[in-house]
Amino acid sequence: MGKRVVIIGAVALGPKVAARIKRLDYAAEVTVVDRDSLISYGGCGIPYYVGGDVQEIEGLCMTSANVLRDCNFFKNAKGVDVQTRTEVLSIDRKARMVHVRHLSDNSEFDLPYDKLVIATGGMPVIPPLPGIQLPGVSVVSNLHHAKLIKSNLAGGKIDRAVVIGGGAIGLEMAEAITDLWGVKTTLVEKMDQLLPQAFSRDMSKIIKNHMEEKGVDIRLSESVLRIIGNPETGVQAVETDAGQIPCDLVILAVGVRPNSQLAKEAGLSIGGRGGIVVDEWMRTTDPDIYAGGDCVELTHLISGQKVHMPLGSLANRQGRIIGTNVMGGADRFRGTVGTFCLKVFDLGVARAGLTFSQAAERFNPVQTVVVQADRAHFFPTQQPMYLKLIADRDSRRILGIEAMGQQGDAVKARVDAVAAAMTFGATIDTISNLEVAYAPPYASAMDIVNAAANSLDNILAGYQEPIDIESFLQNLKNGDCKVLDLRSRGNAAPLLKKYPDRWLNIPQEELAGRLDEIPADAVLNLICGSGARSYEAQRLLCFHGHSHTKNIQGGIGLLKATDPEIINE
Amino acid sequence: MGKRVVIIGAVALGPKVAARIKRLDYAAEVTVVDRDSLISYGGCGIPYYVGGDVQEIEGLCMTSANVLRDCNFFKNAKGVDVQTRTEVLSIDRKARMVHVRHLSDNSEFDLPYDKLVIATGGMPVIPPLPGIQLPGVSVVSNLHHAKLIKSNLAGGKIDRAVVIGGGAIGLEMAEAITDLWGVKTTLVEKMDQLLPQAFSRDMSKIIKNHMEEKGVDIRLSESVLRIIGNPETGVQAVETDAGQIPCDLVILAVGVRPNSQLAKEAGLSIGGRGGIVVDEWMRTTDPDIYAGGDCVELTHLISGQKVHMPLGSLANRQGRIIGTNVMGGADRFRGTVGTFCLKVFDLGVARAGLTFSQAAERFNPVQTVVVQADRAHFFPTQQPMYLKLIADRDSRRILGIEAMGQQGDAVKARVDAVAAAMTFGATIDTISNLEVAYAPPYASAMDIVNAAANSLDNILAGYQEPIDIESFLQNLKNGDCKVLDLRSRGNAAPLLKKYPDRWLNIPQEELAGRLDEIPADAVLNLICGSGARSYEAQRLLCFHGHSHTKNIQGGIGLLKATDPEIINE
Repeated sequence: MGKRVVIIGAVALGPKVAARIKRLDYAAEVTVVDRDSLISYGGCGIPYYVGGDVQEIEGLCMTSANVLRDCNFFKNAKGVDVQTRTEVLSIDRKARMVHVRHLSDNSEFDLPYDKLVIATGGMPVIPPLPGIQLPGVSVVSNLHHAKLIKSNLAGGKIDRAVVIGGGAIGLEMAEAITDLWGVKTTLVEKMDQLLPQAFSRDMSKIIKNHMEEKGVDIRLSESVLRIIGNPETGVQAVETDAGQIPCDLVILAVGVRPNSQLAKEAGLSIGGRGGIVVDEWMRTTDPDIYAGGDCVELTHLISGQKVHMPLGSLANRQGRIIGTNVMGGADRFRGTVGTFCLKVFDLGVARAGLTFSQAAERFNPVQTVVVQADRAHFFPTQQPMYLKLIADRDSRRILGIEAMGQQGDAVKARVDAVAAAMTFGATIDTISNLEVAYAPPYASAMDIVNAAANSLDNILAGYQEPIDIESFLQNLKNGDCKVLDLRSRGNAAPLLKKYPDRWLNIPQEELAGRLDEIPADAVLNLICGSGARSYEAQRLLCFHGHSHTKNIQGGIGLLKATDPEIINE
Repeated sequence: MGKRVVIIGAVALGPKVAARIKRLDYAAEVTVVDRDSLISYGGCGIPYYVGGDVQEIEGLCMTSANVLRDCNFFKNAKGVDVQTRTEVLSIDRKARMVHVRHLSDNSEFDLPYDKLVIATGGMPVIPPLPGIQLPGVSVVSNLHHAKLIKSNLAGGKIDRAVVIGGGAIGLEMAEAITDLWGVKTTLVEKMDQLLPQAFSRDMSKIIKNHMEEKGVDIRLSESVLRIIGNPETGVQAVETDAGQIPCDLVILAVGVRPNSQLAKEAGLSIGGRGGIVVDEWMRTTDPDIYAGGDCVELTHLISGQKVHMPLGSLANRQGRIIGTNVMGGADRFRGTVGTFCLKVFDLGVARAGLTFSQAAERFNPVQTVVVQADRAHFFPTQQPMYLKLIADRDSRRILGIEAMGQQGDAVKARVDAVAAAMTFGATIDTISNLEVAYAPPYASAMDIVNAAANSLDNILAGYQEPIDIESFLQNLKNGDCKVLDLRSRGNAAPLLKKYPDRWLNIPQEELAGRLDEIPADAVLNLICGSGARSYEAQRLLCFHGHSHTKNIQGGIGLLKATDPEIINE
């Protein structure tokens, strides 16, 4: 008789584990149980189903060869027994059995195991708000929610929607609703930025501006107090500490937490982030029980801290490892560098590692922002890319990268390459010479990742004295700030007019001959299109004794994307 | 007085070194000399100028802020003295002087240096063919050639062109000429594949098929014997060992070699690849002389061999290092993993490391080819991506990656991430879990790079018994070959009809119940759309004692791209 393996959960990790086990030993008896009737679906695809990129819900449940992944499929194609609408009530570790109930007839029985795999996933955080149970208020954590939301939208009765939560799912759902259905959408986030776990505040402004251009109303630093409506007609408004927002639909996307209750009740260790504790072999504190996916905590390879990273890609990779190890192997999952990407309308955003403020909690970080074309600047399809790189001042180790631009694959390319290097402890010097592929249709000869690392190197060597965009804006608003614009007269003219007392202009190529025009004492903020010419100017000014200058990171290019009102006439 | 630095060559590396030096110490006296009148241009952009993506030649000589990079620009914006049309006749290392001649008036003089930088670049290989000097025969190594070719094309007198050489420049030029000008173009390559230095033969077939679809006539394994025409009317035909190809234009793109003659005459060491020998600090065998870019040899970080890699991106990165080191720093350039990408019409291709045959020269390599969607398979913009991964059987170290697909940035993303990991000695296991960013619009949950590494792991563990596409085709042609097609009846039907004696069909989900139909003794080649279901079938068959099966790598998806005639009705 083969090894008896029971797997709790049949969405992402569970089916992957089951299939891997059967490929290693077809004699293994693999049973997968899931509370739900729908299984093995691409949950990350829900926003694309709601937004119409995926027409039918079955699209999320198909293999790449267009076969429906239902119980029959698992039985016939994989040799795996999947029992749906079957809830696990408890785990008896001593007897090595799980006690389950069939939801169809309430019958209960025991499933013995040699090895158990917990793949219970995550569950949406539901804040205890008045009105949270009203019809028209929905989380987005499974296909039933997805169907309901889409049928509501398709019914044509939704004019206005509110998305609560500015994380990845909130942003994707806001796009889906706005884009396909033309619903006037407001997104409410209680923090002072979108995606606070993933991006630094300055970078997140680029996302906010882009979403606003696409018609989404973004409310930051606003807390939802209650949801207004009645049980018959449903939701009517969301009330925040800034007022009421009328709406017919509310999407709740304030976070996901590990679904670790069953493990906890069985006496397995649960970590500080609420996830099941597993070792590098994905084993829980019981050597016969493995866990992975959204229900576990992982080690962050940069911070060393435990983190909860609910991502289908991590679940799939862990699933293979668990399958191998259940069958006697010893594959390891070392942890995560937090690589992540997202499409927000026409903007591709990606990141890895720590944000600047996360890095500041345990390192002595330095950051730079570079704005550069994602192709050779002479190539016609080039678009600006915005890239932040963060490193530790002492060890020079790379701590984080954040990037965005209109060509999302190109953004992902930069982040994936740096993230790969980060898992090996890459330093600034590694990234300065990171050998990314070059051809004019795809990159500059000096790629933006190389340029960003060079910028950090210049800062740490004391050659570049930077000022980040938020500090500069603060100074500009306070009025105690002079700016030297190194661009051409024509480009600088509107800002000379807008800030007549604070804005100077000397094109960079004239600077060497016009040094006598430089104010001797004032701190001078240097700006150009991207921060490159202004850096060159800073070096020249420094050589001539003007050491009180600051180079504005990312220059006009970054201001245009983050704070357009500053530069617009 | 500042340090006197003389730089020979003002195209890519030279200007980069000069600018870096001045930023480190504006007092340095930097003189750049170049034989040409045109300087500091994006030479890699020439095909895009000829093909019309870049309208004017000046587009290749501009900064990203649209300023022309001429001598005035270097003087005013950078403080660098550039002397064009100035040839270096010799280097007097003892006296630390270069002896130069102004080509305008033939005046000669000496330039003393404290540090010298040789940035003489590469030069096109010109084979000693009869007729090579005829009007209408041109290499593509500088802007003068580019202008001449484009003006010939614009003159409207070119109906047919022959490109000699199937390397990167040959392919880019073939595209440029065909795409914008509609010229009937034939590309002749003496080897049996395109891009023989960069891609394995099976993968290069995808490129060949794509180019043929776009109208380029590709002739492999054909050697050019002579070029026919007369000095007045120009070229009329190219004669190869297979016959004559009439044409009005010949582009010679058979390779580039290091321009190291000057360094050789000065007694500096020249390596086996003809390039100047430099150490990790980019110093030649004379500690006061640095060299970089297309005139040097580099260490290949995978093979350990010396290689010549003429790429603008390497030149730029080396340029910064040389600038730093000339001014007393100690930055290092460790070598190259041979990362490279190219746009070929609508196909993006990229690679790093060694091809399979290069790897076989000094390792015990194993390879796999995976065909998979570049986005989630349910995402509407998904396109197939083709990816080969090569590793060493003994150390499991990754030796090479080759990828291609219609979304070039997505191809580059995979290669850049794996290349970054390769510089750290990544193994199969690293890439199995490489944390590339995931969201349905940009990737599958199990990304193609993870899937490829898993495939190698399965092969080395003995779970998967592969057959590469070329061996399979050989067997199919020889007739000693049975194929079990695991796809649906409908998909398999045309091939059952085409190969009635050799093609069987059992849909994978029916296989467990139809094992009695499996021929007991014959070697059975298993095929599906991509190689995934056929692998699953292989495991099942093996469990049931059918150990003589081979899984066809990449399946029908790869056949469709490499050898469409096999599967077309």
